[in-house]
Amino acid sequence: MNIIYKTVLKGSYYTAIDKNQIDYQIDSLICIDENGQIANIVKPNNGDYEKIHHEAEQQGTLMALTKDQVIMPGFIDLHVHAPQWPNAGLALDRPLYEWLDQYTFPLEAKFKDADYAHLVYDNLVETLLANGTTTALYFGSVDNTGNVELVKACLDHHQRGFVGKVVMDNPAQTPDYYRDESAQVALDETEAFIHQVEQLNKNEKIPVTPVITPRFLPSCTDEVLAGLGQLATKYNLPIQSHCSESDWENGYALETHGQRDAAVLDDFGLLTDKTVMAHGTLLNDEDLDRFKNRGVGIAHCPISNVYFGNAVMPAKKILAKDVKVGLGTDISGGFDPSIYQNIRQAIMSSRMLDEGVDSKLSPELRGQEDAAITARNAFYMATVGGAQSLNLTTGQVKVGYAADLQIVHTKYPTFGHQEPEDTFDKMMYQTTAAEIDHVMTQGIFVK
Amino acid sequence: MNIIYKTVLKGSYYTAIDKNQIDYQIDSLICIDENGQIANIVKPNNGDYEKIHHEAEQQGTLMALTKDQVIMPGFIDLHVHAPQWPNAGLALDRPLYEWLDQYTFPLEAKFKDADYAHLVYDNLVETLLANGTTTALYFGSVDNTGNVELVKACLDHHQRGFVGKVVMDNPAQTPDYYRDESAQVALDETEAFIHQVEQLNKNEKIPVTPVITPRFLPSCTDEVLAGLGQLATKYNLPIQSHCSESDWENGYALETHGQRDAAVLDDFGLLTDKTVMAHGTLLNDEDLDRFKNRGVGIAHCPISNVYFGNAVMPAKKILAKDVKVGLGTDISGGFDPSIYQNIRQAIMSSRMLDEGVDSKLSPELRGQEDAAITARNAFYMATVGGAQSLNLTTGQVKVGYAADLQIVHTKYPTFGHQEPEDTFDKMMYQTTAAEIDHVMTQGIFVK
Ligand SMILES: [Zn+2]
Ligand SMILES: [Zn+2]
Repeated sequence: MNIIYKTVLKGSYYTAIDKNQIDYQIDSLICIDENGQIANIVKPNNGDYEKIHHEAEQQGTLMALTKDQVIMPGFIDLHVHAPQWPNAGLALDRPLYEWLDQYTFPLEAKFKDADYAHLVYDNLVETLLANGTTTALYFGSVDNTGNVELVKACLDHHQRGFVGKVVMDNPAQTPDYYRDESAQVALDETEAFIHQVEQLNKNEKIPVTPVITPRFLPSCTDEVLAGLGQLATKYNLPIQSHCSESDWENGYALETHGQRDAAVLDDFGLLTDKTVMAHGTLLNDEDLDRFKNRGVGIAHCPISNVYFGNAVMPAKKILAKDVKVGLGTDISGGFDPSIYQNIRQAIMSSRMLDEGVDSKLSPELRGQEDAAITARNAFYMATVGGAQSLNLTTGQVKVGYAADLQIVHTKYPTFGHQEPEDTFDKMMYQTTAAEIDHVMTQGIFVK
Repeated sequence: MNIIYKTVLKGSYYTAIDKNQIDYQIDSLICIDENGQIANIVKPNNGDYEKIHHEAEQQGTLMALTKDQVIMPGFIDLHVHAPQWPNAGLALDRPLYEWLDQYTFPLEAKFKDADYAHLVYDNLVETLLANGTTTALYFGSVDNTGNVELVKACLDHHQRGFVGKVVMDNPAQTPDYYRDESAQVALDETEAFIHQVEQLNKNEKIPVTPVITPRFLPSCTDEVLAGLGQLATKYNLPIQSHCSESDWENGYALETHGQRDAAVLDDFGLLTDKTVMAHGTLLNDEDLDRFKNRGVGIAHCPISNVYFGNAVMPAKKILAKDVKVGLGTDISGGFDPSIYQNIRQAIMSSRMLDEGVDSKLSPELRGQEDAAITARNAFYMATVGGAQSLNLTTGQVKVGYAADLQIVHTKYPTFGHQEPEDTFDKMMYQTTAAEIDHVMTQGIFVK
């Protein structure tokens, strides 16, 4: 009996096999089944190679890449504020309160309007896919009208979406025009959204997952945090928020709850093995141990952190501790929708932590030892680390994994022979959306 | 009498008017004469507007931009190692000596081969132009065969090129296979190159300027440095080198010459008002005063500095001191040929200097006060600062200036009304080569 695959990609691929190592395989057949899973990977030395190649050719299911194209897992963006997309790149030299009050909150409040939400979200999801992002974990808006449009955009474009209705009910830290009316209303709306997503998911091959989403400790009452912890348990859902992003946020937790940010969230049942916390630039060792024990993932957003994080997240240390960690764009605290750009900035920020920045200090006092990460480490975060944080069987080119893939045209001429490890470095440093020829989610071509 | 312009661009433009301010003008007519100079800028409220518009239309010289396109000055890249282009993005996690010995020097040595040089340089110059870089200051190779190909590539593609034959004759700090045979040979070859460029420039509208180019203090003997200082005077030419790029370089000058790097170069007559020194991450106040007094410009290469600079160049302080400073990509110490990417990293690095990077330090101890630059400051460096450093009448949209321009398609939909200052920020943060529709040097379309 012959197995008929839906698509057979013939080409070379890169995939992370651990934090430090990349596997590179030439001219393989990546066989994708009807469910969009990678059912088989056949290497050139395999006895069945010719037969499978021939059959796929006959069936018209073979897609042979050119020698300049390579296959990689699609990226996972662990932190995107979807309604902030129109503001990407704006007002980044304003202080945080001005950025929030004059740019961010007024914009998010517009997502009561379904037409406007549709316009923005359709473009955002398409843009992220065009940049190779096959999975995204989104903060929506307070209002569910917009959130439903975001779910629909993910379903329409076949992006693996995780979407949260943002909860912010604390009158002391939120504007009058953009706030949940009360803790109870916020909880009701969160539950209503969970059911709306369930409905929209019917008959969809790549369902969207609703996510419990307190904006961050300062914008929420204790009542709502407790209720959200209970909803996460009741529906067994992922949770997302921000944790220890800035000195101000750290200070707020200590002042109002007498504990560190992470400890407060933990007390409300919000740190689980389905939790992703954004930023964590100021997490201390105790916090990181807590994250590790609970199985919490961190969304490392290196571009955004330059503007709002007050320090560099110590990525190398967090990887060494085996705390789950992936990458996020944090639109629009970060200006760029590309995970590639965040890979580059993750490397650069880690080097700046390692070397230090202030030339007036002597070299010994200037930096932190052993803080620099490699392009491989960053690629691991963008793929495997993101998948682990969301408990997904994706992020690798591997049998049994979802076929969430990107096909990249290696950008610049090599001017002669080039080692595969050098090609990998070039791709990490130079790929933009223009070099991503195709993107596939769960076996469906989406670019 | 009617003045007939060669090209009349109709559109909105941005140009820097000082370090902190950008001028934005809508729907202007930028009138470019036969020599490629901006002869006239006519604003909509000008009485001659309709007449000039009509005449240009009749003559077929009008180019009306769409409402999504804007005009800006072309960028000036003050530091590119042309023969390192094939290595852009490679081996950046290696230590400097390994990067030099295993990647950089062996590659540069290949530029004895004219065919290889032609292949690489043709692609490099085209790529820089495609990224909006209308002027570039290049380090070539030791061998003039390659350098001549670089000059030809600039002339062929109409890029405003400054090209230096690299001098490195110190046997203690250079490899056997890639070194000037002696100080005298290095000086003779430099002089020969100056004459070769003179020949190649004949009948060219945008001539290439030869540049006196000691690689850096450690790779040169005192004899050659003295001779190069004299050649710069004899031919009244620009000079380029590296200065205080790293702790190692700083230490080398002190150890071998008992003085700071800048002071040694000054003693050899290499700091003039036509000098551009790359990096300067570790320049101290005395060095900066010296640069200011001599009229030396600095090529700030923020991406490269992350890998090899050991600290962040204090851009805000240098701008405040009125030392000339522009931007450079430093291919391949920097991985990206785009000045836009270096604008973004210049902003980010300055913020990291301002905020600090190490979360283990308290906020007061972590950063340096008042070190963050704005997108406007960075744009000023990329245009006006670069032009000042090379003593060029370009870098601004201004009457009497060379028409070195880029026409950018603003990348993302605005989803409603957007203020011009917000459009400017978006362009600085999001433009890639894909959004640059046209590039013009001295009135000639080159993209
Ligand atoms: Zn966020
Ligand atoms: Zn250099």
